[in-house]
Order: sequence, then structure tokens, then C-alpha cells
Amino acid sequence: MTLPRIGVFDSGVGGLTVLKAMAEQLPAHYSYFGDTARLPYGTKSAETVARYAIGATRFLEAQNIDLLVIACNTATALAFPRIQEAAHVPVVGVVEPGAAMAAELSKSRAAIVIATEATVSSHAYRDALQRHGVAAHEKACPLFVPLVEEGWIEHPVTEQVARIYLGEALAQAPERADVLVLACTHYPLIAPMLRRIAPEHMQIVDSAESTARVVKRIIEKDEICHPERSEGASATERSRRTPIQPTSSAPAEHRTFRFYVTDSTDKFKRLATRFLGRQVDHVEHVDLGG
Amino acid sequence: MTLPRIGVFDSGVGGLTVLKAMAEQLPAHYSYFGDTARLPYGTKSAETVARYAIGATRFLEAQNIDLLVIACNTATALAFPRIQEAAHVPVVGVVEPGAAMAAELSKSRAAIVIATEATVSSHAYRDALQRHGVAAHEKACPLFVPLVEEGWIEHPVTEQVARIYLGEALAQAPERADVLVLACTHYPLIAPMLRRIAPEHMQIVDSAESTARVVKRIIEKDEICHPERSEGASATERSRRTPIQPTSSAPAEHRTFRFYVTDSTDKFKRLATRFLGRQVDHVEHVDLGG
Repeated sequence: MTLPRIGVFDSGVGGLTVLKAMAEQLPAHYSYFGDTARLPYGTKSAETVARYAIGATRFLEAQNIDLLVIACNTATALAFPRIQEAAHVPVVGVVEPGAAMAAELSKSRAAIVIATEATVSSHAYRDALQRHGVAAHEKACPLFVPLVEEGWIEHPVTEQVARIYLGEALAQAPERADVLVLACTHYPLIAPMLRRIAPEHMQIVDSAESTARVVKRIIEKDEICHPERSEGASATERSRRTPIQPTSSAPAEHRTFRFYVTDSTDKFKRLATRFLGRQVDHVEHVDLGG
Repeated sequence: MTLPRIGVFDSGVGGLTVLKAMAEQLPAHYSYFGDTARLPYGTKSAETVARYAIGATRFLEAQNIDLLVIACNTATALAFPRIQEAAHVPVVGVVEPGAAMAAELSKSRAAIVIATEATVSSHAYRDALQRHGVAAHEKACPLFVPLVEEGWIEHPVTEQVARIYLGEALAQAPERADVLVLACTHYPLIAPMLRRIAPEHMQIVDSAESTARVVKRIIEKDEICHPERSEGASATERSRRTPIQPTSSAPAEHRTFRFYVTDSTDKFKRLATRFLGRQVDHVEHVDLGG
């Protein structure tokens, strides 16, 4: 019984939280591509982001992946349809799974979305939540990513920053909001802290975790044409490929991890070890040009 | 009497502190080019940074500038000789003026350099200080730039972060170090705070301020071939151009500011107003491609 091969794409290290969540739920061979030389995607045009993402897609497809996860909020927000069109395997993004989970949990039909400035400006979560009938208040938290990358996870400075950001978000959002969506792949690392700070009645939705659940469902049920509107894989794509092997009987220890980055492998290794909670030694440098 | 035309180039908004320092000392027509769509330069190869910087140089030269300031530590560290070679006007970088000023002030011949991770990794300041006979301890302070861009200038969080970073730097540096070099163009905004936190005997060198002084000296004395080794303009360049007009008699109110950016003008306007301490309304978007 062969394990499925899953490609994971992000502009940097953030997508590793999605990889971690998947690896905990699903034995598979994982290939992770971090386009670290060209980050951040948040300041780039949709055109450019689509071009970069499609380059990464081609690279990962050459590793014979069965499914591609766009573990990058910006690429999902700006270029999902174009990536899906270009890909020969099913593609899952990070926005829709988080929005769907938030919609499932919210009783009041109002949520707070915290994310980077780029993700907030794209309004991708607001739009996705709206499709599920949930009103969203979006709050940019630009210091969280550098704080996480600095390794200040359980740190008084990060806690102080989180109290300020959440305080501002709560003051501006509709009072009834009962879900807090962590709409950035860096945020799962500070989820325990955010849980302590957020009001007790708010449920926290981690989009890495939500994405992992969607991927697991697709792989296990071979449910390639999954029900979500904008980020599901299409039936056309389903027909292009052979069914993914169910994995329940494959031993987890057979799973492998491969990492590819476009910039310095050293910085990536250091951050990846922190993000994954396991030593990451083998990282290959690749050059996709431009 | 015409005012000199000065081109200022940076990957983003940081170089505006250099522009501000120059504008306070020197009436001139300033054209500022912020390559905001392609920042940060710190993660890119020397080859790529040189290509971008030379593109910006061509753009600014088309505005008939008399002198070009590379107000970007990464571009200065990685590509100064290539920019100088490509330029048809004298070029001043930000590293050498700061290092020269630190060397002038240091009695103990030991300095602490605080900068971004990219600038520290380049060791441009360490090397420049070494040429002046000063030993440098370099300390990366990756949270300062996002804190400044968040607008948290006189803010308890920034102060706490500054105390941590400076504490670490002081613990690791030679005890005799008597100069603190602010080797990032964002840091002048938090210079008053750093002054309060740093030990009293340490002098603070602001590389934006130091660069402005060098530019002023060149312009006023038409001393194009200024004495600094690596970042001065060459005599060849001097001969290629007509002398710069002395400016003392030109009224300061005749000076103009033009801003060009490769990404969103809105974000730039907002940050530029904070960095310059004056309203910035007219920012042109330009596209230099790839």
C-alpha cells in the first residue's frame, strides 16, 4: 500500500503549520516548497503571485504529487482559480477550510478574522465567510509574524502585543462575534496564548488545522470533488488522475518529508525546526528564476 | 541660482529618514524612489539586488539628478561598486558615512552595530569599521522595522523590545564599546528611545544623519571626490559632469520632493508622512518590470 504524495506550497515558513497539522492526521509523503527568495507575496500583484505559484506547482508536480495544498493565504486569496486551472492534481487552499469551519461553529453569525495586512486587504476571508452567511470583522496584526519568526512564542512582549490587537479587534467588531479565525499560517504557534487572552465564549478556528481536516477527508474518502465552492478540486481534475490510495493501513513511520526553498536553507532549517517541533536537516535549495 | 537635484533610492520607506536628514540640512530638489514591490532586498542575491538598484539608478538619472544616494543598507552592502560603475553621477551609500562617524567618535575603538538580519549577515558595517580600526559587535534587531512601520514609536512594547535587544547586545559586546551605530534607516525614528535606554557613556551614530552630512559636504564644496574609500564618487565621475551649484543662496522653500514607488502608493503615503513628519500627497506609481 503506497502512501499518498502531498505537495505543500507557501511563500515562506508559515505553511509548515499546515504541514504539521496534516502530518499529525495523515501519513503521507510530503514535499514542501517555500518560495523564500520571493517573499513576501503580500506586496505583489495578483499577476506576479499567480506566476510564482504556478512555477511552484510545476515543480511540485514533477515530484509526482497526488494533491497540492496552497498553504499560503496570499496565494490562495489572489491566485487560487489560476493555480487550480494550471494544476493537474486536486488543489486545496487555506481560506475556504477556515471559513467553512468558522461558519460551522458560529451561532451568532459573526466572526473576528485576524491576519496579515495583505490578507486583510484582500478581504478573502470576509468574502468566504459572507458566502457562508457569517459577517466578518477583519483585523490586521502585522507584528505577529515577526514575533513568531523571532521565536518569541510564549513571551511577555508577544502577550502584550496580542492583548493590544485583540482589544482593538473586540472594540471594533460586532459584540456578538463568537469565533476568532486565525487567518495566517504563522498564528497557530501563538494559538495557546490567544486562547488565554480571547474572551472565553469565543471559539478559535485555526486555518492550518481546518485545512488539514479537509485534506484528510479528500484523501481518505478519495472525495476529490469536495463540497467547498471556490477552493475545491473540480470534477475535471478528478477525472485526470488515478484515485488516491487510502492510507489507513500504511504505517506512519514510512512517511517522508522533503523541503525545497528558493533562498537560504539555513534560516529555513532554523525556523522549520521551531514550526514543526522536529529537527529539519535536509533542505534543498532550488532556483526557479525571475 | 538653481538648486541641486538629488536622487534617493531605497527598497522601501526606510530611506525617507535619510531624505529627512538631508532636507533639514540642504535645500535641493529631491526625487525619492522606493522599490516597494520588490522589497525586502535582504533575502535576495547580490546579483538580483544589483539589477534592481541599477534599474532604479537609470530611472532617477532620467530625472536629471546631480547626485545619487543609495539610502538602503542592503543595496549598499551588496551592490555599491556595481551601482557606482553603472551610474553617471556621483553615488553615496549609507554604510561608509555611518562607519566613518563611529570611528571619529569612538575612543575605545569598539562599537555596537544594530541592524536588520540581512545587514548583519552582510557584515558590511563590521568590515567598514574594521577599515577604520574599530572592532564591531553586530546585533540583529528584526522586530524594530515592523514596530516602526506599525507606528509604535514611543510605545511601551517597543521600549520593552529595545531593552531586550540592547541588553543582549551589551552582554555580548566588548565592555569597552562606546558607540552604538543605528545601521538601519528605520531606526532614527526610535533614536530618542534608544538614547534613553543605552548606557549614558555610549554615543549614538545615526547612519541617516551621517549620510546627510556627507552629501551636504559634497554638494557644498563640490567635493565630488570625497575622501571615503569605498562609497565615495570617483574622479572619473566627477569629470563626466558639470559642477554642482552651491546652494546657500537658494531659498529653502523652492525645494521640491517627488516620490516614486513600484507598489501601492497608499501604504507608502501613510508611512512616508510618519517618516518625514510632513504630509506626503503626491506619490507616483512606476513599473520597472520583473
